[in-house]
Amino acid sequence: MDKFFEYDAVEWNGDKTGVKIIDQTLLPKEEKFLILRTPEQVYEAIYKLRVRGAPAIGVAAAFGLYVSLLPVEGEMDHFTAEFRRIKQYLFSSRPTAVNLGYALERMESCFKKNIALGLEGIKKALLAEAEAIKNEDVQMCRAIAENGLTLMRPGVRIITHCNAGHLAVSRYGTALGPIHLAQQRGLNPRVWVDETRPLLQGARLTAYEMVKNGVDATLICDNMAASVMARGEVDMVFVGCDRVAANGDTANKIGTMSLAVLAKHFGVPFYVLGPSSTIDRNCATGADIVIEERGASEVTDFDIKVFNPAFDVTPAELITGIVTEKGIFRPPFGFGIEK
Amino acid sequence: MDKFFEYDAVEWNGDKTGVKIIDQTLLPKEEKFLILRTPEQVYEAIYKLRVRGAPAIGVAAAFGLYVSLLPVEGEMDHFTAEFRRIKQYLFSSRPTAVNLGYALERMESCFKKNIALGLEGIKKALLAEAEAIKNEDVQMCRAIAENGLTLMRPGVRIITHCNAGHLAVSRYGTALGPIHLAQQRGLNPRVWVDETRPLLQGARLTAYEMVKNGVDATLICDNMAASVMARGEVDMVFVGCDRVAANGDTANKIGTMSLAVLAKHFGVPFYVLGPSSTIDRNCATGADIVIEERGASEVTDFDIKVFNPAFDVTPAELITGIVTEKGIFRPPFGFGIEK
Repeated sequence: MDKFFEYDAVEWNGDKTGVKIIDQTLLPKEEKFLILRTPEQVYEAIYKLRVRGAPAIGVAAAFGLYVSLLPVEGEMDHFTAEFRRIKQYLFSSRPTAVNLGYALERMESCFKKNIALGLEGIKKALLAEAEAIKNEDVQMCRAIAENGLTLMRPGVRIITHCNAGHLAVSRYGTALGPIHLAQQRGLNPRVWVDETRPLLQGARLTAYEMVKNGVDATLICDNMAASVMARGEVDMVFVGCDRVAANGDTANKIGTMSLAVLAKHFGVPFYVLGPSSTIDRNCATGADIVIEERGASEVTDFDIKVFNPAFDVTPAELITGIVTEKGIFRPPFGFGIEK
Repeated sequence: MDKFFEYDAVEWNGDKTGVKIIDQTLLPKEEKFLILRTPEQVYEAIYKLRVRGAPAIGVAAAFGLYVSLLPVEGEMDHFTAEFRRIKQYLFSSRPTAVNLGYALERMESCFKKNIALGLEGIKKALLAEAEAIKNEDVQMCRAIAENGLTLMRPGVRIITHCNAGHLAVSRYGTALGPIHLAQQRGLNPRVWVDETRPLLQGARLTAYEMVKNGVDATLICDNMAASVMARGEVDMVFVGCDRVAANGDTANKIGTMSLAVLAKHFGVPFYVLGPSSTIDRNCATGADIVIEERGASEVTDFDIKVFNPAFDVTPAELITGIVTEKGIFRPPFGFGIEK
């Protein structure tokens, strides 16, 4: 269980002088790997979505900051200035990604704590810190997958939306983690993959992951989910989450809430899977979550008004359980109070 | 109210020697008109979906049969053989379209009834019959639109799916008929247009119709309908229908049932609009309706299993009313018994 897909979305090249990623913009058709060595290459890869998914971006930024600093030598003042400049530059590649800022702040704390060690010592510490950020994510994803697996029986039929998978994190995935694990352990899950308009992360990335891991998967358009549920061919819904409010309301890729309403109507359990850090105890309900609206050109190039929200908020009342590395939370959620 | 869009989806050219259609495969970007004069041209236009929508196909076939026979002269035996050959050929262009068979059978009945009149008299009768088929459809659509209009108040916000519009019928449309009429009469309806994956009839055809008629319309991906309902921005759903069972279960474009489930969850009235001839009293429930499954290539070119049903069945319990030219039927429907 140490490797998966023979590669992670973000890993070292052979001698740890470069960040190796698979170019996700070319999937599912082409598996092309890139080695990133400069701040400009790392920035471009994040900005152009060659690496995407909040945890994977965080790891790419930490790895990228380290390799960018490798050639920097000379006075500590110069190194410090370069550290700050590159950190700020990488942060600007996708500033709304929470894990990006988190990973870069951890690298800066590590730098400050080890400043007395000199350049070689600092670089060694930054390497260890970047690897720790990734390893913690791997452990967390594995725990989420194990917890999710307790919900599944052999031949279970799951529908999923968007891509909360191996490609989006350090390994395995969140919503897809239990599915990959179940496949490895011979449970033969069957998966319905929503194509996930407008950017088709399901049709491109989740479809690729399922085929790659040999999972029995079927692609559908988002508007067909109701039909497969009506035919009694779905046992549960697994989706990821971008942010969970204290009351359990969950923001995730547009279309998730639609799936939750359908699941309730057809009596299908609806599970959200993600790290417990996604739960924002300072956010009372989904009403406090601002939804990003994106450009019309993602939907059409015809001259008509377009409404293109990137996310929606699934009310807690539609959620059967929230699966985290700490266990499975069930309603009433009440994350505002520590439990 | 005699013309609309300055053209109908199917009409005569100037001297009634050709069938004039707008090439719907080029919409919304290009308004290109074609004049069809031969059986091969009519067949190609129907087969390639340059003209689509069951009523429009029926009219195109009737008009097309007439113009194809115009150059046929000589003995009655020869004319009769040509009539049968061309009729059969046109029928094979899209044999599942009910109106295609209906229109061609009416033309054959007309031919048989007028066989004593000689070639000139027969051709004149066929011309009149083709025009009657279209005029009856225009009258029916107008009646559906007027009945649908009684449900609307100024500024009403409607969501629709696929294209049950002017382009699909002889004039105005079924689901879109009341919207077009409301716009002409100053009610300023506001319309949410589902893009309607996989073939995007909403994004291509309904979006075009709305813009063309100056309706305040906004295009969304199908998975965003739940979000606009959750925001309280939808007053009612208007959709067309391919077939209505005796109990009111309604087959329509894939995604319609999903919209009906969402509408029920959010307390939004859900109306089906169509000719009363769509009600199949011999079909007890939706379970008797066979759903056409189409090819994977409409959804993806990646090598993964695809489920691509062209239609779904909305259970009668989710339908607020069925709007026909005869009036608005409300539950319990019970079309099995004449009423």
